[in-house]
Amino acid sequence: MGELELIERIRSEWGAAGRAAAGATGRASHGLAPSVALGIGDDCAILRPPRGHEILVTTDFTLEGRHFRRDWHPAESVGHRALARGLSDLAAMGARPLAVFLSLALPGEMLSTRAGRLWVDRFFTGLRALADLHRVPLAGGDTAESPCDLVLADIVLIGSAPAGRALRRSTARPGDALYVTGALGGAAAELAAIEHRATKRQMGAPSIPRSWRNGWETSSKSASDQLTAHPQLFPQPRLAVGQELLRRRLATAAIDLSDGLSTDLAHLCRESGVGAQISSAALPIHPLAMQARDAQANHAADAPNRALELALNGGEDYELLFSAPPTTQIPRTLAGVRITRIGSLVRGSSISLLDSAGRRSPLQPGGWEHFTGKH
Amino acid sequence: MGELELIERIRSEWGAAGRAAAGATGRASHGLAPSVALGIGDDCAILRPPRGHEILVTTDFTLEGRHFRRDWHPAESVGHRALARGLSDLAAMGARPLAVFLSLALPGEMLSTRAGRLWVDRFFTGLRALADLHRVPLAGGDTAESPCDLVLADIVLIGSAPAGRALRRSTARPGDALYVTGALGGAAAELAAIEHRATKRQMGAPSIPRSWRNGWETSSKSASDQLTAHPQLFPQPRLAVGQELLRRRLATAAIDLSDGLSTDLAHLCRESGVGAQISSAALPIHPLAMQARDAQANHAADAPNRALELALNGGEDYELLFSAPPTTQIPRTLAGVRITRIGSLVRGSSISLLDSAGRRSPLQPGGWEHFTGKH
Repeated sequence: MGELELIERIRSEWGAAGRAAAGATGRASHGLAPSVALGIGDDCAILRPPRGHEILVTTDFTLEGRHFRRDWHPAESVGHRALARGLSDLAAMGARPLAVFLSLALPGEMLSTRAGRLWVDRFFTGLRALADLHRVPLAGGDTAESPCDLVLADIVLIGSAPAGRALRRSTARPGDALYVTGALGGAAAELAAIEHRATKRQMGAPSIPRSWRNGWETSSKSASDQLTAHPQLFPQPRLAVGQELLRRRLATAAIDLSDGLSTDLAHLCRESGVGAQISSAALPIHPLAMQARDAQANHAADAPNRALELALNGGEDYELLFSAPPTTQIPRTLAGVRITRIGSLVRGSSISLLDSAGRRSPLQPGGWEHFTGKH
Repeated sequence: MGELELIERIRSEWGAAGRAAAGATGRASHGLAPSVALGIGDDCAILRPPRGHEILVTTDFTLEGRHFRRDWHPAESVGHRALARGLSDLAAMGARPLAVFLSLALPGEMLSTRAGRLWVDRFFTGLRALADLHRVPLAGGDTAESPCDLVLADIVLIGSAPAGRALRRSTARPGDALYVTGALGGAAAELAAIEHRATKRQMGAPSIPRSWRNGWETSSKSASDQLTAHPQLFPQPRLAVGQELLRRRLATAAIDLSDGLSTDLAHLCRESGVGAQISSAALPIHPLAMQARDAQANHAADAPNRALELALNGGEDYELLFSAPPTTQIPRTLAGVRITRIGSLVRGSSISLLDSAGRRSPLQPGGWEHFTGKH
């Protein structure tokens, strides 16, 4: 399979712009979202944002060996996560997605072997399932042979929001209350479990049960539950929550939790010029992170802190962190997702954690920084 | 230097969105183009396209070992070419650029050594010089440590064009005349010369004379001439020509010459459902390609065809190929760039080349296809 063949295959599978169909009139061709006037197949794609909207853009790498491992993450998960990272950035600003673009470099052997082509199929199955769930068309991108036998992807999400209304990191105010969506620490806990099993049994990538695949196709409730039970492999970007926050003007600022609560809270505080106090007892900890604590309770002296450590520093949960005025009534759920108040913003720049015994300590950013390889 | 430090450096150097400056009002902060309401530093950038315009999007990989070699291309050239590829896609559709986004993965050693940091500085010098020339702000992107000791970049260009007016590949008609901008074969000829010198002398990357660097800063005419004398290292995207074609409604279709005339003409014909006849005697061949012919005249039997081969199949010239109705008067230059008529479009799907003796032969796409590694 050559590059052109791959492009043609993606193009036909995603129902992208037919040739003459889009034509000089610029009408969207069959199968494309109304936001996409011209999809795959020309020098650029053409998008039509809704009237009165601004354009939001985010790009996110998904590099094998850096953001995933082929022997730990099933191919469907790699495709899903690549898209989820970008959608989560749109969610954090309350935007709605217009189109996704994918630059994808594949090792040469992947296109010449049956196993390789199957991996690519499964990658697109995962990507497509999440794209369909959020009605985001694939409108273009680039392809190349990877120069280093690793899968290299870069996802670009284009979204829109009413002019001047997008949620930002920089607009929180001292006194605001702090909230998170969903639960924290699950993604890191599941990753640790995958690593543990892989080390122990030399397992390859976990296989995806057939029921999940059907789930992607049918979008049934139970399949959806199965997917959300895998916060590392199939994180759910909180687009509907972000859009609700924007529409109802509930939040003063927002950010998504990609690097971990401690790091992303520090970003929000720095950009807004505020400090924060959060309470460890208030943190909504994911069941998998609680299990990680219980599993290690017999081994490690610091086991009781394991769940908290995962919730604070784990990263990749793709939940939203947002601030709201203390007088604003925030519902207990938004778009079906639980909302938890975890603390407040304060004057100054210090960020502190109140433990369950009422002791206060500085909260250091503990998330991952790529280049230094440090937490 | 860690990832955050790199981001901060890019952010301050490019004068991107200050924190509170952009603020809740959504006003563009100092130093940013009016099209960028919010630049580097939030989950997404926010762009404001001109009223009545559509959005154009293109993404292009620049992968070491695939699109450039660190020992052949100076770092300034790598940055320049990464941006030129994307700008050229906008040029082909007659669009004007709103903002550029860069996803950049660098080998760890590059950020920890002096030589590595110098390379990164020079990469950004080249990228920035071309961005400034076309007034394109860097509005965001992603950074990561490369998983394989190779520099990996993905450039995203966002542009705009009046609704329904963007030039396409798919709208050419039988009977239209075919034109190219500038000259062909220069980029491939210069690459061959660089390869030849490197093989012969085991040279490292050519160094950039100080006068060029000053040239980037002063944009003087002579420095500009020096740059255009390097079609491989510093190709000039034809944005002004594309915009003129659109504004004056001269072209029926257009595409940029990234893969080589034979391949890109085949793309245009396939998308438009037409065939083509071009004349080898009419092709504007770059002086460097003519020199390549002369240099080889004593060695190879097919030397006289060398220049033609480079012009037809060389690729990376980033000139524009466009069609226009036969009755339309096309100026000899547009935006200071020479325009040459090279043939016509015909009914059917066959593409043929008329040689100087009046013989006609089929023209096969001979450009590079990444995955197969074939011409």
